[in-house]
Amino acid sequence: MESKEVVAQGAIEKIGLKGSFLKFPFKNDKVILEGEILEHKSGIEYILGVLTSEKYGCIKSLSEIDAVGHRVVHGGEKFNKSVLITDDVMAKVVECIDIAPLHNPPNLAGINAVKDLMGDIPQVAVFDTAFHQTMPSKAYMYGLPYSLYEKYAIRRYGFHGTSHRYVTRRACEFLEVPFESQKIVSAHIGNGGSLAAVAEGKSVDTSMGMTPVEGLLMGTRAGDVDAGVLSFIMEKENVGPQTMSTIVNKFSGLLGISGLSSDMRDIRAGIDKGDKRAELAFDMFTYRIKKYVGAYAAALGGMDVLIFTGGIGENHSITREIVCKDLEFMGVKLDFDKNNEIHGDEAVISTPDSKVKIVVIPTDEEFMIASDTMGIVSA
Amino acid sequence: MESKEVVAQGAIEKIGLKGSFLKFPFKNDKVILEGEILEHKSGIEYILGVLTSEKYGCIKSLSEIDAVGHRVVHGGEKFNKSVLITDDVMAKVVECIDIAPLHNPPNLAGINAVKDLMGDIPQVAVFDTAFHQTMPSKAYMYGLPYSLYEKYAIRRYGFHGTSHRYVTRRACEFLEVPFESQKIVSAHIGNGGSLAAVAEGKSVDTSMGMTPVEGLLMGTRAGDVDAGVLSFIMEKENVGPQTMSTIVNKFSGLLGISGLSSDMRDIRAGIDKGDKRAELAFDMFTYRIKKYVGAYAAALGGMDVLIFTGGIGENHSITREIVCKDLEFMGVKLDFDKNNEIHGDEAVISTPDSKVKIVVIPTDEEFMIASDTMGIVSA
Repeated sequence: MESKEVVAQGAIEKIGLKGSFLKFPFKNDKVILEGEILEHKSGIEYILGVLTSEKYGCIKSLSEIDAVGHRVVHGGEKFNKSVLITDDVMAKVVECIDIAPLHNPPNLAGINAVKDLMGDIPQVAVFDTAFHQTMPSKAYMYGLPYSLYEKYAIRRYGFHGTSHRYVTRRACEFLEVPFESQKIVSAHIGNGGSLAAVAEGKSVDTSMGMTPVEGLLMGTRAGDVDAGVLSFIMEKENVGPQTMSTIVNKFSGLLGISGLSSDMRDIRAGIDKGDKRAELAFDMFTYRIKKYVGAYAAALGGMDVLIFTGGIGENHSITREIVCKDLEFMGVKLDFDKNNEIHGDEAVISTPDSKVKIVVIPTDEEFMIASDTMGIVSA
Repeated sequence: MESKEVVAQGAIEKIGLKGSFLKFPFKNDKVILEGEILEHKSGIEYILGVLTSEKYGCIKSLSEIDAVGHRVVHGGEKFNKSVLITDDVMAKVVECIDIAPLHNPPNLAGINAVKDLMGDIPQVAVFDTAFHQTMPSKAYMYGLPYSLYEKYAIRRYGFHGTSHRYVTRRACEFLEVPFESQKIVSAHIGNGGSLAAVAEGKSVDTSMGMTPVEGLLMGTRAGDVDAGVLSFIMEKENVGPQTMSTIVNKFSGLLGISGLSSDMRDIRAGIDKGDKRAELAFDMFTYRIKKYVGAYAAALGGMDVLIFTGGIGENHSITREIVCKDLEFMGVKLDFDKNNEIHGDEAVISTPDSKVKIVVIPTDEEFMIASDTMGIVSA
């Protein structure tokens, strides 16, 4: 990696399903290559084939690839930073399957597939949870019997760590202020979403928990819910914990409230047509973000920088406006006109006299993964 | 009720259990009368007997009692204020048993007992949930499928409403500021605890939910927990919703974390002896209150008054100090010396230049119940 140039990007969607495909940008257009991509190894084989193909390729041979970086969702308490993947690392990621049964197995499959296809090429794991491992115990412990923490490592881990790590550093570079001395609230708002409180360059709290269901109202995830309500639903509907988990993960959030869609664009379209439940969903969505901004400003004892990132955070000026409205008492003054102009670009959207600098920073998790991989491989 | 004089007070504890007793203050002392008090009717009969007794009584005959006020825990969406108890009211309280199975049945038993013993005496129900019925839907709805709200009325109700109603009005009287124009955060902190956000004299949000388990870390209740964690525990421990409910209600909170006690005095004693888990429990306890103060200040778009009440809120200056520390950025400046002096008295504990007035207001739910009863009966 001699420059930060992106030579290729893309992703496979619907892996293992009928109609799976590889999608990537090419010469100002989007290419979709359909394929029978039934599992992760054939997916990576497909990608490597396209990368070296005459028509779409950017390299002549796989030997031009020096290292592979992987996003790994759950590192539990075992990883507080990115690491070179060894047998020991693999064993520890396997141990974390227990707390991330849906995410860690495909991550492991990807790593094993690269090993099978590319031999001993250096691979690096970048964990979604690692950045939040600096949280103090008062922030990461649940108010449950302590034995459950000892027995199952039940605690808040938080996610989107790679994004929060990137945007908090990048915001400070952009603002030309020292990262280590800023009190930062970072709002990663997309189909999934989380806020993080960052002080002295370290995550001190975040809204997602042991699982990604806690915190904000998301596309299909419920966010914060009374624990007593869950027992109530299970008894009334006579369903077990698996079904309950499916309800709060897949049928809740914007989708569950609106009955329309998990996609913010559809929610906004619904509101424009006068749909009351779409409006309720959007009101709940912004209200929760606002409450977390207040909670984390209090936790930090003040706020110097407020960051918006993620698909909605970067592009959706109305969400930013509602979140920032009426927060002048804590030094937050949004420049409404500037805010309306910004869609996906790095920008300061607070007024010059705002004590809190409000910024939009498009996230770049791929850059962080490449950068960590480069750093570890060349160390 | 010609004056606000309290002519008698007291309570029965351990009703239905061996060693049940009636406890009341008498001539600067506490009297404990043991009795075989096996259910609510005999309990009320016992109380009425003592009220008219020669030794401890304050009235000569039951005919001196003009009305009876009852605390009723859950009024669901059916009651937004105190009401005279009629057959229709009784039927609606019965309908609310579904969402308050532990609380409403004994409340009903008390009302029926008074009817049996005192005939057609006017009785008034004062609901713990009523004050919070003004919350907007964005605050009271959970991010669950909307059908669950329609089917079971699953939503945030909040509790301690009688206390929050009393202290927010009383604080404004005490401060000589108009109640209707203040933005107030009320922190009722006892063995159970909740915060409420009050604007224009109305509750707009509160930390307890459909059940009293949500929100703060309490004596034995967990407060906020990732919904995903509950499914996880149920699967791992192979327990059902009833057991899960018992875990988060009875074995969590200060007790669950410390392993010592649900009582703050024992937690503080543990900390003094160097107990690390007692320290963690206390840190979590204060940290959650601080985050809710920030969240509700943001929800209100500012804060004029911050109230501490409840057993711990009124008496525990160290809790108040930790909650208020480092909140100068939102106008909160505690007078540390004054705070240390105040235990259970009405007082302003902020500095003269603090934008937010911080006050201690001892709660008085009994006064509110008597006052509502008086108001309704004489209307």
